[in-house]
Order: sequence, then C-alpha cells, then structure tokens
Amino acid sequence: MVDIIEKKRDGFALTRQEIDFFVKGYARGAIPDYQASAFAMAVYFRGMNKQETAWLTDAMMHSGDTIDLSRIEGVKVDKHSTGGVGDKTSLVVGPLVAACGAKMAKMSGRGLGHTGGTLDKMESVPGMNIFLTEEQFIDQVNRIGLAIMGQTAEIDPADKKLYALRDVTATIESIPLIASSIMSKKLAAGTDAILLDVKFGSGAFMKTLDKARELAKAMVEIGDELGRDTRAILTDMQQPLGCAAGNSLEVKEAIATLSGKGPKDLVELALNAGGILLEQAHIAKDLEEGKAMIQKAIDDRSGLKKLHDLFEAQGGDASYIDDPSKFPLAKVIKPIVAKKSGYVERIDSLTVGVAAMKLGAGRETMDDVIDMSAGVVLCKKVGDKVNSGDVLAYAHTNKEGFLEVYDDLLNAFEISDKEVKTHPIVWDYIK
Amino acid sequence: MVDIIEKKRDGFALTRQEIDFFVKGYARGAIPDYQASAFAMAVYFRGMNKQETAWLTDAMMHSGDTIDLSRIEGVKVDKHSTGGVGDKTSLVVGPLVAACGAKMAKMSGRGLGHTGGTLDKMESVPGMNIFLTEEQFIDQVNRIGLAIMGQTAEIDPADKKLYALRDVTATIESIPLIASSIMSKKLAAGTDAILLDVKFGSGAFMKTLDKARELAKAMVEIGDELGRDTRAILTDMQQPLGCAAGNSLEVKEAIATLSGKGPKDLVELALNAGGILLEQAHIAKDLEEGKAMIQKAIDDRSGLKKLHDLFEAQGGDASYIDDPSKFPLAKVIKPIVAKKSGYVERIDSLTVGVAAMKLGAGRETMDDVIDMSAGVVLCKKVGDKVNSGDVLAYAHTNKEGFLEVYDDLLNAFEISDKEVKTHPIVWDYIK
Repeated sequence: MVDIIEKKRDGFALTRQEIDFFVKGYARGAIPDYQASAFAMAVYFRGMNKQETAWLTDAMMHSGDTIDLSRIEGVKVDKHSTGGVGDKTSLVVGPLVAACGAKMAKMSGRGLGHTGGTLDKMESVPGMNIFLTEEQFIDQVNRIGLAIMGQTAEIDPADKKLYALRDVTATIESIPLIASSIMSKKLAAGTDAILLDVKFGSGAFMKTLDKARELAKAMVEIGDELGRDTRAILTDMQQPLGCAAGNSLEVKEAIATLSGKGPKDLVELALNAGGILLEQAHIAKDLEEGKAMIQKAIDDRSGLKKLHDLFEAQGGDASYIDDPSKFPLAKVIKPIVAKKSGYVERIDSLTVGVAAMKLGAGRETMDDVIDMSAGVVLCKKVGDKVNSGDVLAYAHTNKEGFLEVYDDLLNAFEISDKEVKTHPIVWDYIK
Repeated sequence: MVDIIEKKRDGFALTRQEIDFFVKGYARGAIPDYQASAFAMAVYFRGMNKQETAWLTDAMMHSGDTIDLSRIEGVKVDKHSTGGVGDKTSLVVGPLVAACGAKMAKMSGRGLGHTGGTLDKMESVPGMNIFLTEEQFIDQVNRIGLAIMGQTAEIDPADKKLYALRDVTATIESIPLIASSIMSKKLAAGTDAILLDVKFGSGAFMKTLDKARELAKAMVEIGDELGRDTRAILTDMQQPLGCAAGNSLEVKEAIATLSGKGPKDLVELALNAGGILLEQAHIAKDLEEGKAMIQKAIDDRSGLKKLHDLFEAQGGDASYIDDPSKFPLAKVIKPIVAKKSGYVERIDSLTVGVAAMKLGAGRETMDDVIDMSAGVVLCKKVGDKVNSGDVLAYAHTNKEGFLEVYDDLLNAFEISDKEVKTHPIVWDYIK
C-alpha cells in the first residue's frame, strides 16, 4: 500500500490491480485508515485520470451488493441531484416520467446540514414507508413505474467507510473522489440510465459553474467507461429551487407543481430533466419531444395521478394530495419584510438552507429529529420587483425566539436598484 | 484538526497554536493516525515556511524529556550525519575534537538497511557499553571530553510516533518534516552547537546535491530560529566514505585514521568537520586554525589516545586499539576482481551498502542480528587507476554462496577509459 500511495503522490497513474487492491483491502480492514487518508490526500493533489476514476468507481461499486433490476421491463432510469436548498425535483420529475411510461427506480437519501433529502420529505406524509425490500421495490416499479426508497445497508460499503474518513481528514473536495463516490452508489443501484443534476452556487456542494462542470464531466465519463447511459445538467443553486425549503412545505410545492401551479424555475427544471429522462428511456425521440410529453403530463394531471399511486403504493396518506391543507402548519409563521425597494438580484441559498435547518427543518447531526412543518417559503425570487414593506419570505417554525435567523433571512436577499436579468435554470447539458 | 489539515492543504501557513495543538494532540493519542497522515501528506505537497518548521521542531522537542547538559563546562558540541555507507566519522572526529579540548556529548543511533549506525560499530568492541545514565554521560564528557550513547526512550516521543506513521504512508520525503524530525532530537539532546553532515548520492538519504542543500538549509534555519549554533556541510556519498563498510572493519579504519593512516576522503572530512566543531566550541578562531589543530591531533596521536579513553570509559577493551588484529576476521574473504582496465569513475554506495548488509553487516529489519566481522573493504576508490585483474574490493562474510552479491559489488564499480577528476569531499558549508 505504501508503494501505491507513493506512486500516486508522485503523480503516476495507478493500474486497475492497484486500485482494486486498495478498495478491497480498505473495505475489509486490511489497509488501515491512516494509509487510506494519506492516499486520499495524494489523490486530492494529484487527481486521477478517466480510466483510474472509472476503476475506482467499479471497485467501490463491487465492494457490496449490487441491485439486479432485470426483472423490470424496459429501460430503468434514475435521477440524482448533488443536493441543494428547496430541491424537491424527484417528487415532481419521478411521477411525471412514470406517467409518460418510464420506469424510475430511485434510491434516495436523507438531508444533512443545509441540504434536504427526498426520504425526509416523503416521511412528512403520514404512513409513508421508505424501507422497501428489493422485491417490493422491483414489483412497485413494474406496477406503477416509480418507487423511491432508502439505500440498503449492503450497498457500497467501501464508499461509506471512505467517505466518513474523508470527512474528517479534509479530503472531501477532490473531483475524482466525489465523482466515484456518487457514481459507485448509483451504478450499484442498477438502473440502465442515470441523469445527474449537478447544482452550483452558494447552497450547492459545488460553489462555481466551472467546478460543477468538472464534476459533471467526470461522472458522465465514469458512466461511459462502465457502459451506462449517463448524462448531466448543470443547474442554478444561486437561489433556492422553487419557493419552499422544508419538508412538508416542499411536498406541498411538489403537489402544486404537478397541479400546474408550480414556480417557474422548478417547472423549467422538471421539463428539462423529465425530457432528458424520457429520451434516455427511449420514450421520446429527442429532448423537445420529451419536454412536450412532460408538459402534457402536467397539464392533464397524469403526473399528479402518479404521485397518488406512489403515495398509495408506499403506504402514504394520498388524501393529503387532494387536500394539502391537511399538512399541519408550524405555530409561528413569521413574515420577512423588505426594508428597501428594488429588484431581487440574489437569494443566498446557503443562508436560506441554514436558516431552514435552524428553524427545525434539518439536522445538524444525523441524530437530530426533524420538524416536518418547519422551513422557509420565499415570496420573491431573483428578478422580481420588490417594494419596501413587501413580504420577501415566511419563516415557519415551532421554536421561539430566532431573531438572528430572521435577520439572516432578510440579509439573504440582495436587492439591486437596477432591473435584474434572469438566466434559464439549466446552464449546460453534458452527455 | 480537520480545519488544520484543510488550512495546510489549501496552502496557508499555520500558527504556533495550531502546530502545538497537532503535536501535543498526536503525541498523547487525542488526534488519530488517519488525521496525522493526511496532515503529513498535505505538508508533503504544500511545505512549511521557516517559522512553521521551527515551531514544529520546538513542539516535537518538548513532547518528551530534554537533556540538561549545564553541568558540563564550556561549549557542548554534537555532530550528526544524515547517514551513508562507511560513515565512521564520529569515531574519528569525536576523539580528535575532544583531544583538542572540545566537549562532545553525542547521542547516536543504530543502523538499518544499507546505512550503518555508530552504536553498532562501537559494540563490535568487546565490553563496550552504550547504555549510559544521564549522569554517567555528563560525568564522562566532563572527565574525558567525549561520550557516545544511545538515545533514551523519553526523548522526542512525538517524532518517534510521527516518523513510524510517515514511514508507512509515503510521507517521509518532505524537507520540513525531515528537518524537524532530525533537529527536534538533536535539540532535545541539549548541546549548544550542532554540526550536520548532510550527505548526498546514491547511498545517502538525499540523492542529489540540491536536495541535500535544501535539507541542510532548513535544518540550519531551525537552529537559528531556536537559538542554537547550527551549521552544515554537504558531503559526497557518491562513493562509500573511506574504504571499509561493516562494523569492526570500520572501527579498524577509524583506528588507522587516528594513527595517521586514514584514507584520503575520510581524513579530509575529519579535518573539515573537526575544524568547524573547534570553531563552534570557540577553541579555534577560524576553520583554518581548527583544521590545523585536528591535523596535529592526528599527527601526535592525541586523538588515538582519546579513543583509548573513550573505550575505557565505556567498558570497551582498549587493547583492540593497540592491536586491531584482535578483531575477528570473517571466514570468507572474497576478492572482487576487475575485468577491465581504466579509471574508477563511480562506486555506487547504495549497491555497496546493500551488499554489506546482505553479507551480514546490517539489518533488513530491526530484529535482525548483525555479524560484526562482515562487510566490504574497497581497495580502489574514485579516480584510481585499475588494471584488469586488480582486486577492487574484498567481501567479508561468514555466510556461504552469495554469487549475486559478488556480482553486484563488481557492478558497483564504473570503470572509465579516461582519467577521472575527483572533487573534494565537502561540496558546500552552510552556516
């Protein structure tokens, strides 16, 4: 192992055997943490080429179980977001593509810090079960075209162990290590096609468009090397996605979006992501046709109907879809009021995400309990005109006090004197 | 600690508090190995400035006991070599400077791999005791001006732990880490002045003159920062030092050198190192005077007399000095014969060192037992004229077989058709 660390440290490419030796040895405890962390730091500085990154991904993917989805007919698709604030896309796009005939078999995760997780959002619906057996998962996708469940314990143990180590050794921010960590889990989950939504901006994992593009390219290359149809879109997290950040608040926004009343940026993202997924599933012949099909599934409410099916299939109370006012509201709903007039230039996603977490919507550590009704609802988005005295957002919470959080939310809004031009939410499409 | 690793990873200089936090935390086990190794790798890539390196050295030095030599009168000097093949300098220079009135209080080490250690060489003399108490050590330096002992267990535990970790995480080759490791031990040993003999060439730790100069400068800077008179010479390890490599063979060569019959390069090194040490001890007013005093101590045999004193003080049988033929010879003494004529251009030190080790003179691991009589004696050195059939060297061993080693030794000699110019052994002097 010392020789492998040294080889990487000195900038040489590793062989498949060397990478396998590391992953297997580390996963089973034969290679100690202190060598793995030194190795990760060497990779941080020296990088890995396309081939090495693919081998690393392949080795990690095979460190545990891989899901066999062959019992599902047709092209199985998955969408993965690198995480952001207000990102309820899966709950919108999943039902829409399933309504169009695609098979979406999705493993999802929980939220941590300022970033929410689809599983937590689903659990804001009473009765919802996110722990399916592999058989239940496959049967459900065959039956209704869509299932969303938590990752099983046996998927990608090498990544779990390595990621936890990287977290405490300042070796997270390495493109090949991030790319292989995400892709090894997605590949183990067994779908034929993967769409990656790589977000950039203050509330995203990647802070800049360039870094996001670098990560997206690395992941698409891994997919290519390992024979899976993998594509990526680069989308804006320079403001929160849609208006709601917080679990039941986001589910309500997903329901509204599937009812034709979604916020502009979320609808735009749903059309693009859904359109690409339909193309990947060989249901649409191109992106334009895919987008038209998604639009139709919004307009004719077949997507909303599919959300209904999803809730029912996983034990969730679907009456909440018909009457979203059944979701309990937080005790305190505090308006955040503009102190100057102008145009919204920027809404700092990280600030909004951290505020939502502090209001009760998120976890600082994995042991914290989430308040499903807490969060933030934005009333103004980038480009909107604002008059002094207008409500910019509402903070929802069951906690008392929180003057600091309210100030933070106000300061998250940058108001410009001049009119602000907006950019489409999708900045690039990599395939 | 993650923040400290990240800060160094991103190329920022650490504060004294941060460095102390790391060294103290790591020494007492509060900071785990996997963070220390990631930190070491970040230092490998980002380096440390003069101030950081001095703080690191100071923190490591104070992680354990420091020796108080204040009971010894006058300037206490020490000489440290970064290690090489055939390096018996301490056994020559120590007695010479002590004969001139200097106080040399030297802690030494054992050999490993192709590099010999002074303690092992001393133990080739029957009865020699290298385990002195601090009190015995101080008393002996006061009485005869010279003592050489093994490092006590309580010196610099942080370095012991960190060095062992670096050894298995490919983070040895970092100038600030090497410099602080060497200097923290030397400073803890308590002398007022330190002369570093930094060797370069195939048999040395530093392979090139530039790298050796970089290390020498870093160590001299540490000494300056921490208020000790520290100087360094850069010396040639592009061929073994002197003619003998192997424990009792080297002691015999040291005796010969103190008797006025030393090989040219060793004598030259002894004059320079000894001259500088006498200057550092304020006994000579400059290097020239120092060298003249050393030459005189060779010529009048006062250095040889001092070696006698050293042996007697530490229990060694001094009759071996009067009659070096008492050292047992190995059973097999195999001549290595030149197959072509010409001039010796190079004698690969690493090859000779490894051959000596394999013949029995050294350890592959710390548990191996040394054969004191084994080793290599060179009959030709760089610049010498050779005729086909001349003996280039003798291999001394008590083992059978070893055809490969003999071939290796022959191949260690590069013979040129043209006359070869030689360079003085000291390439640079840094103070």
